[in-house]
Amino acid sequence: MSPRARGILTRADTIVGYRTYIELLKPLITGQEIISTGMTREIQRAEAAIDAALAGKVCAIVSSGDAGIYAMAGLVLELCCTKGVAIQSPGAPAKGTGAGLAIEVVPGIPALAAGAALLGAPLTHDFAAVSLSDLLTPWNTIARRLEAAAEADFVIVIYNPRSRRRQDNLDRACEIIRRHRPAQTPVGIVTGAMRANQRVSITTLADLPEAEVDMQTTLFVGNSATMIYRGFMITPRGYSDKYAISGDRPRTDDGRNVRSAG
Amino acid sequence: MSPRARGILTRADTIVGYRTYIELLKPLITGQEIISTGMTREIQRAEAAIDAALAGKVCAIVSSGDAGIYAMAGLVLELCCTKGVAIQSPGAPAKGTGAGLAIEVVPGIPALAAGAALLGAPLTHDFAAVSLSDLLTPWNTIARRLEAAAEADFVIVIYNPRSRRRQDNLDRACEIIRRHRPAQTPVGIVTGAMRANQRVSITTLADLPEAEVDMQTTLFVGNSATMIYRGFMITPRGYSDKYAISGDRPRTDDGRNVRSAG
Repeated sequence: MSPRARGILTRADTIVGYRTYIELLKPLITGQEIISTGMTREIQRAEAAIDAALAGKVCAIVSSGDAGIYAMAGLVLELCCTKGVAIQSPGAPAKGTGAGLAIEVVPGIPALAAGAALLGAPLTHDFAAVSLSDLLTPWNTIARRLEAAAEADFVIVIYNPRSRRRQDNLDRACEIIRRHRPAQTPVGIVTGAMRANQRVSITTLADLPEAEVDMQTTLFVGNSATMIYRGFMITPRGYSDKYAISGDRPRTDDGRNVRSAG
Repeated sequence: MSPRARGILTRADTIVGYRTYIELLKPLITGQEIISTGMTREIQRAEAAIDAALAGKVCAIVSSGDAGIYAMAGLVLELCCTKGVAIQSPGAPAKGTGAGLAIEVVPGIPALAAGAALLGAPLTHDFAAVSLSDLLTPWNTIARRLEAAAEADFVIVIYNPRSRRRQDNLDRACEIIRRHRPAQTPVGIVTGAMRANQRVSITTLADLPEAEVDMQTTLFVGNSATMIYRGFMITPRGYSDKYAISGDRPRTDDGRNVRSAG
């Protein structure tokens, strides 16, 4: 956790969060009021946080990873907009009385960066992040984005690959990507990055449908140049092509040559 | 900086980095050997770090933002692969003698997360990251990725939008995106996020070519639902569509309605 986030949590009157995340914050909780709810209760959490802030409390709402990537910062701002709550950024000049709630979004290490670090360096070139959750997004939109990202050779980071209610979306996603990428394309699988239940493995696009994957998993589908070397997943930026780097080119674990998709 | 990164830098024998970043680390430097070089000397820096590690030093190589996103982690691993240097992740079981250099990638807060937080929450839905640097990547590949990302309604994060040598790429990128997005699409501009020279502003796709943009700038091009509310850039996840959230829908700053592109 960044020192900034830690400082805000320490000084808050009220902390709002999903139950599991509140558990992880236990060491920082001294006398703060805690509002925690179960999964899928995001709207209730965001509304509780806005209400607490409107009542004059310094209120922190927590997400795992980065609050801005598929997470609570967007929902809080979306709700303020929908409800017409006056807001301002902490650095903005106050616009007279009733200038509104000061809202600060504190960035963190997103799951895509934590997962990439555990795998090696799969995100050294252009990438697209796609969530397979079709709770709020029609499957057609998701499919169209997967198709575009696969066709244009982006590394693809997949959030929310599978839940109890959605067993099929990952299989359908693999089918779409397979139209544009070979079966042996490396895929990194990271579950519970940096937590006690952390699991990291590397498979291929062909074998991805059989992999152990849940809602805490982030997937990294390589682009046409991504390779595995001694267990590290690497998407080259293309230096080896551009400059005469000394040394023979060794075989990679998966027999791919070192080259760039760029 | 995360506690993990701070700990590693404090314990390192040698720290390697671009001159500007070494300056930012001054408070952490006590007796470590420092190897710093100018911009565009990335290969020399990575080679120096690998050489120091092979000579038995505990060596840290620094990037700004996250080391895995368009940054040094990939280059170090790419070079180890090209040169056939034996490497292993710190957690991997040692494979006998000569098991290789232990390499740990420490994740950080990437520019896309830091910039998004300063703007509000532009990355709450699917996004694509594209670098406009054509030093190592042919322009055709960059153009094809921009076209695909724009067509499939990804929020687009643009890295390396302009340098002294490449004045035109941003104009060409805007033209491509304009084929798929209206002129009034919000664009967030963040330069030097979280540093002394930090600048944050919001413009439109039509006005983007005139904006003040350099190599330290990250751009956030909204998707079809991204809106501005009281100075915050928000890409809704789609809760307002799915659930009957109470309250009248106010006009946003740019007259867009609150709806989802999902």
